[in-house]
Amino acid sequence: MTIQRKLDICFSPYDYPLYRMDNSIVVVIDIFRATSVFCTALHNGARSIFPLAEVDQTREQRGKGFLLAGERDGIKIPDFDYGNSPYDFMTEEITGRQIAVTTTNGTQAINIVKKDAKEIVIGSFLNFSALVKYLNNRKEDILLLCSGWKNKMNFEDTIFASHLAQELLPLGYSSNSSDSIALAKAVADAAGKDILNYICRSSPRIQGRMSLLVKDFRFCLQKDQTEVVPVYHKGYLVDSLQTDG
Amino acid sequence: MTIQRKLDICFSPYDYPLYRMDNSIVVVIDIFRATSVFCTALHNGARSIFPLAEVDQTREQRGKGFLLAGERDGIKIPDFDYGNSPYDFMTEEITGRQIAVTTTNGTQAINIVKKDAKEIVIGSFLNFSALVKYLNNRKEDILLLCSGWKNKMNFEDTIFASHLAQELLPLGYSSNSSDSIALAKAVADAAGKDILNYICRSSPRIQGRMSLLVKDFRFCLQKDQTEVVPVYHKGYLVDSLQTDG
Repeated sequence: MTIQRKLDICFSPYDYPLYRMDNSIVVVIDIFRATSVFCTALHNGARSIFPLAEVDQTREQRGKGFLLAGERDGIKIPDFDYGNSPYDFMTEEITGRQIAVTTTNGTQAINIVKKDAKEIVIGSFLNFSALVKYLNNRKEDILLLCSGWKNKMNFEDTIFASHLAQELLPLGYSSNSSDSIALAKAVADAAGKDILNYICRSSPRIQGRMSLLVKDFRFCLQKDQTEVVPVYHKGYLVDSLQTDG
Repeated sequence: MTIQRKLDICFSPYDYPLYRMDNSIVVVIDIFRATSVFCTALHNGARSIFPLAEVDQTREQRGKGFLLAGERDGIKIPDFDYGNSPYDFMTEEITGRQIAVTTTNGTQAINIVKKDAKEIVIGSFLNFSALVKYLNNRKEDILLLCSGWKNKMNFEDTIFASHLAQELLPLGYSSNSSDSIALAKAVADAAGKDILNYICRSSPRIQGRMSLLVKDFRFCLQKDQTEVVPVYHKGYLVDSLQTDG
């Protein structure tokens, strides 16, 4: 007999109080770009990510051995080492280093659930299959938490959450009673396979950022580029393999 | 030159603080079944609807000349005159009467916006074209507020909001910067024309209530059954024609 584990999707950190489940794993999703960046940085040798909600709080880590990364409204914070482009983290400079990061949406989502979730795991297209495997081994209820855009539902996180949910459901998860999983599937079905093209046509928010960020967007929508599964462990995001044993 | 008025969709009363716009008309939407009921009751001769958030508060109106109507979790409150089925309001008993109403979602939404909105208007498929005409004449920014299900996004309100938004956009409204209108359109497109069939297949929440409520659901999805446009006026919902002049 298959154990039925619960699965649900929350479309925004603002709505988290409505969707939280006791003793569940929360998968934090910020496809453009924070959670894609976390996967990329750990894949490329960073030791850990220190996710912080505030810019000042992040700046204070400079003297403590951290590299600094972050953006507000999509723009790199001028005095920080890196912005929020995955391409910023394809350098040997980060090997073995700890990186303090603050972003508009993704780090906020982590901040909201960190006191509450049994475990926080980072999801992106880049680590899709590794993430599915990791979650399936853990045998827990799962909440997929979209970071959204300034607390509002967005396309890219919703579509990713649907892809992940549809992969998990046949493994012995049952949909919670909300309409979320089915709503996300309607959006993902509408988008089809060429997600970037669909989002560009549909989202006024993405259209405005397209010329600047298209290279990043394209990168973030690639499936299975890494086996890294970042998990939140004692205040830091580290590759799940580092927390084992 | 066409005046560009702003238009946005908020998927749940819980999210209203994120989506509120100054000086806008708020269209409250609770397709299954509150806002469909309001249209039906006024169409069938009720003088006004007194929407209330709490059951006890509603019960107190009995001695004051009101008929009582309401539900919680879809079930009629036993000592009330009516539940929340539109068929309850197809009786001459209601002619000229004031009806105090409390529902799980729809009256809560009104309660949340009543201190804030420039005007509150009630939307349903039943008064779709009359509503479009009314809104277009008013020349204001518009927020479509879905009541959802216990503060979570649901299918039927999202689909209606999309139908309404797609009708309004060509009349000189522009989408706000959120993804809401495009997300709602993805869901409405997925549903297609046979909305009931689609929702039944997709929504675990609706599936559970289907056997009891299919007749109501079918009624509530009919377009253009009335010219009534309920507006919130001094604490009561009345037909907009009654507030003119």
